[in-house]
Amino acid sequence: MSGPDRNARRAWAYLSAVAEPPCAPVIALTEDVGAVEAADRIRTRRLTDGDVDVLEATRARYAVDRSAADLEACERRGGRLITREDAEWPAWSLLALDQASTAARGGAPLALWVRGEHDLAEATQRSIGIVGSRAASSYGDHVAGRLGADLASAGWTVVSGGAYGIDGAAHRGALAAAGVTIAFLACGIDRDYPAGHARLLAEIGRRGLIVTEYPPGTTAAKHRFLTRNRLVAAMSSAVVVVEAGRRSGAANTAAWARRLGRPLGAVPGPVTSATSVGCHQMIADGQAHLVTDAASTAALAEPDGHDPQPPSSPRPTDDLSPSQFAVIEALPARGTLRVDEIAFGASLPADRVRAALAILELRGLVVCSGGTWALAR
Amino acid sequence: MSGPDRNARRAWAYLSAVAEPPCAPVIALTEDVGAVEAADRIRTRRLTDGDVDVLEATRARYAVDRSAADLEACERRGGRLITREDAEWPAWSLLALDQASTAARGGAPLALWVRGEHDLAEATQRSIGIVGSRAASSYGDHVAGRLGADLASAGWTVVSGGAYGIDGAAHRGALAAAGVTIAFLACGIDRDYPAGHARLLAEIGRRGLIVTEYPPGTTAAKHRFLTRNRLVAAMSSAVVVVEAGRRSGAANTAAWARRLGRPLGAVPGPVTSATSVGCHQMIADGQAHLVTDAASTAALAEPDGHDPQPPSSPRPTDDLSPSQFAVIEALPARGTLRVDEIAFGASLPADRVRAALAILELRGLVVCSGGTWALAR
Repeated sequence: MSGPDRNARRAWAYLSAVAEPPCAPVIALTEDVGAVEAADRIRTRRLTDGDVDVLEATRARYAVDRSAADLEACERRGGRLITREDAEWPAWSLLALDQASTAARGGAPLALWVRGEHDLAEATQRSIGIVGSRAASSYGDHVAGRLGADLASAGWTVVSGGAYGIDGAAHRGALAAAGVTIAFLACGIDRDYPAGHARLLAEIGRRGLIVTEYPPGTTAAKHRFLTRNRLVAAMSSAVVVVEAGRRSGAANTAAWARRLGRPLGAVPGPVTSATSVGCHQMIADGQAHLVTDAASTAALAEPDGHDPQPPSSPRPTDDLSPSQFAVIEALPARGTLRVDEIAFGASLPADRVRAALAILELRGLVVCSGGTWALAR
Repeated sequence: MSGPDRNARRAWAYLSAVAEPPCAPVIALTEDVGAVEAADRIRTRRLTDGDVDVLEATRARYAVDRSAADLEACERRGGRLITREDAEWPAWSLLALDQASTAARGGAPLALWVRGEHDLAEATQRSIGIVGSRAASSYGDHVAGRLGADLASAGWTVVSGGAYGIDGAAHRGALAAAGVTIAFLACGIDRDYPAGHARLLAEIGRRGLIVTEYPPGTTAAKHRFLTRNRLVAAMSSAVVVVEAGRRSGAANTAAWARRLGRPLGAVPGPVTSATSVGCHQMIADGQAHLVTDAASTAALAEPDGHDPQPPSSPRPTDDLSPSQFAVIEALPARGTLRVDEIAFGASLPADRVRAALAILELRGLVVCSGGTWALAR
């Protein structure tokens, strides 16, 4: 990397770490004066009264510049730092965050630390978030894995949070189907969190993408999971909750999906299962659509693509009159009958049978051949 | 039973059998001229051109009068024939059938053959229909049994069709909870259908009610199940489908519930289970509400009792900007502050505070009085 580029990277890395992300004032200053100048002003406290929010937000960390070490740590893991100035910046997906409230952990990120060979903007163009309980049931694991695999096979990128339970099953399903999957972390790109998913995360980094807005060295923390959840929602064309208990982190991602205008699906499960209570609640409250498989989930993400609710075709005998129905019932599955034989079997006068047969023939339910009648097909 | 009463009973029993029920023309004639006269006219063919529908409908059976034998067979089983003239006639429940299309197996019944000690009108005042697959899974059996027991414990009459699978589990659950349950049959009151439910039906007859519009001796037939289903729906304050495959008889009862304006619920299950496909389809299509237990089912039946879906009102501060939020936070719960005091508390420059206050005042969140500011209300 050449000198000026290197300087800019250093500035972005410094800005990424100097306030707890997402920090709207730091982003606003960076957009106003550029990353290098913004970093310099923050580092040297050359900030005006108008920048009081920046001063406040960076007060605790401005004096510590770990940007060189952070970039190096990232590169050691095969990662890169991408910013609003990069071609693969997923500006389209993040637009919803810019439009959403900037209060309380909202807003688009300043920069993203990324591991993996895919272009982030491309990979998130057709993507579906699969989220749910860490303490998933074997039913949830099975459904999430199947959903991940089927969606990946159909060309969707599977987005999730890399956690135990539903997240992991969805990632694994996508990998098993040789598809693309993205894990959004609530810690630095150099951390394997949860530790038991080190191999899974390594595999996702090799064949998919690992993404975080936290600089290397950042540890996972509760508020960071909540902040991370908004990225899972924003970077997905639709979000589906596979399992969620009464109080679940997945409900937070679901709330972000609704806030950002992302279609939200939920998978039902046994009413006897505590891990499906949250899903059932979301469906019953009209917050989430009931989805059962990859097809109904994909239909949420591209409602124009196909009809998510094919009208169930009524059975052809559904609206027959009693006499028409009796005639149908009187006809054998195979073979033919004369009108008087049908009349006997249906307990109807012959003229009623003839009238019924005429209507049924028009509707293609019976056929006449040589004066005798049979069921069509 | 005295002579005239006996005659009227005989007439009702004859009318109940002389045409395949429900037969709107026979009912209309009976209401016009009374049961005894209607029976006599049909038996002797003293019918005018205006009664051509009656002539047609009764042509196959008018000459056969089994009314005495039918009444005797019913009484032998401890049953009774109730008519539109009896106090326990469930007129209120059946009103919806009179109002619904009388085409195609619709319409209220002429009379009902009943076994059991409860008053039919009373027993159906607070009643919930539980229906579903004959080929239920063990999950469905469990849920239907639990639902039947819990609803019965809460004072609801459990209505179903006496069939294998969900129906049987619901009846058994209600009986186990010492509650009232009603089985609507698609055959005569003297028949045990299905045969494997003979003991269950005997128990329902002892402690609940067995009801059918078919005279004794009538065999179960496919079109009679469909006709019977409308009574299950009509006689229920709400109907819930516990399990249903892609093509299920329960869908027919569900369709009747919707047609009759009865709230319809469906219980979700594993998406991997074929017997839950119909339930999921009904929920996804918006035809049925998702219910998970007796409480959510009962809430369907008496929506005024409690609100099944309290609308989650967004907090008024949900979409504030950071500075607006800081200003709100800086204002005390009681008392007022000057702009410079707010600026100090919020760590914001005064001009930002003034801008934020202007927006907050417009939104009704703060009020200004004599140059100082306070939280609204």
